[in-house]
Amino acid sequence: MDLLKFKNKKLYIDNFKLESILKKKETPFYLYSLDQIKKNIRQVKLSFKNFKPLICYAIKANSNLSILKELNKSNLGADVVSIGELKLALKAGVKPDKIVFSGVGKTDKEIKFAIQKGILSINAESRNEIELINNISKKLKKTTNIGIRINPNIKAKTNKKIATGNKVNKFGISISDFLNIIQAKKNYKNINIYLLSVHIGSQIMDIKVYKKVLNLVSKVLIKLRKLKHSINYVDLGGGMGIPYFKNDKKFNFKDFGLAVSKFYQKEKVKIIFEIGRFITGNSGLIISKIIYIKKINDRYFIILDTGMNDMARSAIYDTFHEIIPLQKSSKKFKKKIEFVGPICESSDTFGVYKNYSSLKEGEYVCITNCGAYGRTLSSNYNMRPLIEELILSNNKLKTVRLRQKIEDLI
Amino acid sequence: MDLLKFKNKKLYIDNFKLESILKKKETPFYLYSLDQIKKNIRQVKLSFKNFKPLICYAIKANSNLSILKELNKSNLGADVVSIGELKLALKAGVKPDKIVFSGVGKTDKEIKFAIQKGILSINAESRNEIELINNISKKLKKTTNIGIRINPNIKAKTNKKIATGNKVNKFGISISDFLNIIQAKKNYKNINIYLLSVHIGSQIMDIKVYKKVLNLVSKVLIKLRKLKHSINYVDLGGGMGIPYFKNDKKFNFKDFGLAVSKFYQKEKVKIIFEIGRFITGNSGLIISKIIYIKKINDRYFIILDTGMNDMARSAIYDTFHEIIPLQKSSKKFKKKIEFVGPICESSDTFGVYKNYSSLKEGEYVCITNCGAYGRTLSSNYNMRPLIEELILSNNKLKTVRLRQKIEDLI
Repeated sequence: MDLLKFKNKKLYIDNFKLESILKKKETPFYLYSLDQIKKNIRQVKLSFKNFKPLICYAIKANSNLSILKELNKSNLGADVVSIGELKLALKAGVKPDKIVFSGVGKTDKEIKFAIQKGILSINAESRNEIELINNISKKLKKTTNIGIRINPNIKAKTNKKIATGNKVNKFGISISDFLNIIQAKKNYKNINIYLLSVHIGSQIMDIKVYKKVLNLVSKVLIKLRKLKHSINYVDLGGGMGIPYFKNDKKFNFKDFGLAVSKFYQKEKVKIIFEIGRFITGNSGLIISKIIYIKKINDRYFIILDTGMNDMARSAIYDTFHEIIPLQKSSKKFKKKIEFVGPICESSDTFGVYKNYSSLKEGEYVCITNCGAYGRTLSSNYNMRPLIEELILSNNKLKTVRLRQKIEDLI
Repeated sequence: MDLLKFKNKKLYIDNFKLESILKKKETPFYLYSLDQIKKNIRQVKLSFKNFKPLICYAIKANSNLSILKELNKSNLGADVVSIGELKLALKAGVKPDKIVFSGVGKTDKEIKFAIQKGILSINAESRNEIELINNISKKLKKTTNIGIRINPNIKAKTNKKIATGNKVNKFGISISDFLNIIQAKKNYKNINIYLLSVHIGSQIMDIKVYKKVLNLVSKVLIKLRKLKHSINYVDLGGGMGIPYFKNDKKFNFKDFGLAVSKFYQKEKVKIIFEIGRFITGNSGLIISKIIYIKKINDRYFIILDTGMNDMARSAIYDTFHEIIPLQKSSKKFKKKIEFVGPICESSDTFGVYKNYSSLKEGEYVCITNCGAYGRTLSSNYNMRPLIEELILSNNKLKTVRLRQKIEDLI
């Protein structure tokens, strides 16, 4: 988080001292900085100012309703992947004509609901889904605007669990199938294919991959023109990564903006993005208390009161989320330390550090970069209640989701 | 599941045709066979009949209250790892003197609650925790019976995410620390160390590892006798694996029982086990509908209406859960097929098959071996409600947990 700074060995977000929350709140809890989210949005918009795309926030990254309402105020649309997310977007005030519906497994019920709400585009991922949308639209006596997601067969250089644009993935359809569908479009009288979508994965740091995608889409557009089919939108997906490791470079949004701007000048189609992680990822922390410090052999285990139930990314993707103490010590650990959670699994670990600032039991730390795929992936494993969520904005704190009660779980 | 059989190409549990549920119930849902659970318990008890241990069910494997009530009727105790699980065990009717409390991160509040309830043993995992239990007991004017978990430094031959008895894991204390604590026991006037606990991991198929553990515990007991400290219980943990792959051998419970029986004859201490997966693992299915079948290049993707949100094991541990159709076809797929969920991630996959029985959209399959670490690890990812849970017993079906409503999530 850019706004995170030490002053006199105490950790602050902007001018807000994080320790000050601990008098009022029980750990662990999520803390989001709305100022950081706004800063991220400004950066994205600035990079894209030449072509003013519709930026749909990928709700699966963070589905906190208060955050979604704020994103809506900033004129972001929504990228949804289930009827639950669609209903949530509408509840947050997002206008239907700013919502795209992605996903490989949309059911009859979900498609019907999306058609009735008149969303911007249902982005279909298979021929069978296109047929289903056409049939449901016919029954409802409607013509539905849809998109088709192509699988570009481009490797995303990311964790294989979140790469989505390779031909071995379940996502999208091949370009030849797409062109066949366009040629057969008279068979689908109740749909209007006006969007082309492509999404290659998540947590991508290298804009070269995106340049490959732009080239490929340009080639597809040439073929579409030959078939005399014009489309209104190109949805370039999302996946722009954030630095998790200290020495990770930042995603070069400026160069990326220039590349897409060129594409836009040439192709004259409206651009849509589906961005999740870049907007909220670095805005979220989990604040956690140290329950025990125990020494085993050559290392200290720092046992936190938060675990893989609250933040599953480390366990699922073996990812790293830097942990920062809320109070720096003038001393350092002489041995290696490992932050772990209280869950009874060895995957419940948050990384090993050398030369880490000394810590005591009862002190507090924060796990960084938890604003995307944090709470949305959390569970009640080991019968632990989902934790509280707070938003900090302009140095003011607000609870935006209460901690679950154990009694509600039982 | 031993009770799962095809008759006339239709899948049955015992005499219950699985397709018959689908008229009444919306997929996906969990289905547990109580008859299978009872069969598993009988097998465990039979193998252990010479020494009649206390079998504590590891609630983290499956925390469905109706199942826990049934296990309690079968005289099983409970192994809990949080105040939530402890409250649930009590609610299920488990007597406090049959409950052990494990876990590396027990808080003040959790320890106090456990002391007040007078459970069989708080199994401490660090010197600091022992001191905390002693201090809280002193304040409450009680003497608390506790166990200490030693880390045997034995590799468990299982997935590293669920191995727990290696010296690089966060669990337990070293044997030398344990003996030091025993020697210093006069400093802890409000605790009575009457249990020794050891647990090396989960999903272990090889009883040789357990034999190593028994040898090691015997050596520790010799040292304890030299220190004139006697203990009443040895808690041997759990971790007995179940076959997930078709050709996996079963865990040899008979030989394991004989090995522990010898140990028991020699050591004359009461034995406790903490068993989860073996009791409920193979009793649970997820029944799911095929939403789409799509062909990409050389394979068919069978898109199910259940995903990693309902069953996270495949995504977290890269494990395999065999999928069986509810209706066999006389035809077969000529190409490879891959079962995937509707979630927007490539880790949302349930495996690739060759020569699989033909399937059509709208047909049903079941994912096997979902009775342990299935529902307890599930989440609302992609804003999907937690699914319904049903129990089948004596060919009678009962809903034991309702599907969440989307409205409750919003």
